[in-house]
Amino acid sequence: MDSTLPMRLAIDEAWKYQGLTFPNPAVGCTVVDEHGKILAIAAHQKAGGAHAEVLALQQAYAVLNEHSAILELTDSFKIHNFLLEYHNHCFEKCTLYVTLEPCAHVGKTPSCAGLIQSLGIENVVIAHSDPNDKASGGAERLRKSGVYVEEGVCEEEAHALLQPFITWQAKTYLTFKWAQRLDGTIDGGTISALESRIFVHKMRSVSDLLVIGGNTVREDRPTLDARLVNGKAPDILILSHLTDFDETIPLFSVPERNVFIDSTLEHISNYKNVLIEGGPGMFESIKTDVDSYLCFVAPKSGGTIPFTKTKEDFKIIRTLSSGDDQLLWMR
Amino acid sequence: MDSTLPMRLAIDEAWKYQGLTFPNPAVGCTVVDEHGKILAIAAHQKAGGAHAEVLALQQAYAVLNEHSAILELTDSFKIHNFLLEYHNHCFEKCTLYVTLEPCAHVGKTPSCAGLIQSLGIENVVIAHSDPNDKASGGAERLRKSGVYVEEGVCEEEAHALLQPFITWQAKTYLTFKWAQRLDGTIDGGTISALESRIFVHKMRSVSDLLVIGGNTVREDRPTLDARLVNGKAPDILILSHLTDFDETIPLFSVPERNVFIDSTLEHISNYKNVLIEGGPGMFESIKTDVDSYLCFVAPKSGGTIPFTKTKEDFKIIRTLSSGDDQLLWMR
Repeated sequence: MDSTLPMRLAIDEAWKYQGLTFPNPAVGCTVVDEHGKILAIAAHQKAGGAHAEVLALQQAYAVLNEHSAILELTDSFKIHNFLLEYHNHCFEKCTLYVTLEPCAHVGKTPSCAGLIQSLGIENVVIAHSDPNDKASGGAERLRKSGVYVEEGVCEEEAHALLQPFITWQAKTYLTFKWAQRLDGTIDGGTISALESRIFVHKMRSVSDLLVIGGNTVREDRPTLDARLVNGKAPDILILSHLTDFDETIPLFSVPERNVFIDSTLEHISNYKNVLIEGGPGMFESIKTDVDSYLCFVAPKSGGTIPFTKTKEDFKIIRTLSSGDDQLLWMR
Repeated sequence: MDSTLPMRLAIDEAWKYQGLTFPNPAVGCTVVDEHGKILAIAAHQKAGGAHAEVLALQQAYAVLNEHSAILELTDSFKIHNFLLEYHNHCFEKCTLYVTLEPCAHVGKTPSCAGLIQSLGIENVVIAHSDPNDKASGGAERLRKSGVYVEEGVCEEEAHALLQPFITWQAKTYLTFKWAQRLDGTIDGGTISALESRIFVHKMRSVSDLLVIGGNTVREDRPTLDARLVNGKAPDILILSHLTDFDETIPLFSVPERNVFIDSTLEHISNYKNVLIEGGPGMFESIKTDVDSYLCFVAPKSGGTIPFTKTKEDFKIIRTLSSGDDQLLWMR
């Protein structure tokens, strides 16, 4: 059996939450017991929530101790404390496969390197080092405390997973999202499955600015909030040369939201994580600035307006199922 | 950890060979040791080649005995005989996860149920029973010989994997294949990645008839053989009202091939596994008869002719990466 299987499964799990973990990276973790049995696979889901290592160790604890009460804990500190108090050396012979170097930094959650050390875990396999100075040093800390650390397993795949995080350390991150049918068309009513729409609402809830075209606002009269997940609605930039909009369009009435109407993208530089939900015109004007393309493809045909009219060459980074749709992360 | 992981990995592996195993079903197998460690994952690749169980046990033997010479064997009988002679009870505590009931029938290859029994494997987990009367009875045979057999794990996913096989037991199987860009267009030079074209040549080599439109033949002057994989070229049905074709078009010169020119699909009933490589017109005329749609999507845009002009509603059964493309199996 390919010894990279646990790491590949951790990477697969992490991709399910790509786009949702901002400002944190998408990270996955697999716990394997002393005999090579996979006990748990988990991923970081949301900033402020438990890290992948903590969630995977929580699941592994439940398996090793046939104790499901631990699974009721959701707060990262509480899971940490439970594990520290009750681990009874059960993890010592386990190997932790983690797509990113465990953090050495106590932030919103306790340090994962510290937890691993306290639990006495003897082996840690890391795909990619931490590019964030503040949190890095985890591997060194583990080695100093006697943990056997292997680095660079599936590093290339882990780098692709980490790319958005690396980019938003340095600049405002721009994700261009659209939904189309298999025939490339975008007109004529709802295209995406409910699961895809929920995913977009989750992305909106971690974006600080949503960019939309003036025509779309006039024609669709959208709300552009995160109501499907009870999330915070992002600010809005309506990209438009005309500034006269019907103020009864729902997006203007969402509480605690700023709405800008501008013919330029200057406002973007005041934000960190920007979601662009544009049509063909917006795509043309912004495509060279975009960091990630997120395309939902519904397995249908029958519209009349294509999304792209120009020659484009994307690179598919990852695809996932999203209800009946396919979700494509592209560059 | 979800106890269905080994079965899901077997199903994933089997899908890589969907469309290539005719007249056999696509089948996957995972071998897990007594401690729950995954030792091997393999799939049946081609009729006449070793079954999934045999390939997985071959790999597992290499792991358990640190003996890689067995991996050089490719003939199913030779692998069987090697395992029977040298297993030394190494598999007894293993669990075999197999997507389809192991065959009880000695055909082109020896019976897998017999092999499992001879190796003394104590646990077999089966996703789906064998719908083929001739080969079925494997689970019963195993139980009678004292093997603990669990059935129905991931049965629904295994049924989707098995659907083509079930269908071609009863009727001629029609697969409609096309390659398009993400924008739905099909014109203007090579669209698919080399990996996708190789996959299609493999499919041609196990198809007995390839259906193509008259216009495509006139415009593209294709060969329509399986040269990329040194495979057998299928017979050709050119669907056309006009019977006058330039006989120097390469497809007419492929040895050991019958070419029919007809305005109806009557010839199809003389064949078992039919691949249709048509354009929009062919799609319209044949779409209600098709069993599987196989669509390669290249992450590009810029053509002018869309594949579908009508309203369609497909169901994605499975997607796979194929070089830079996505491969979609749909109904």
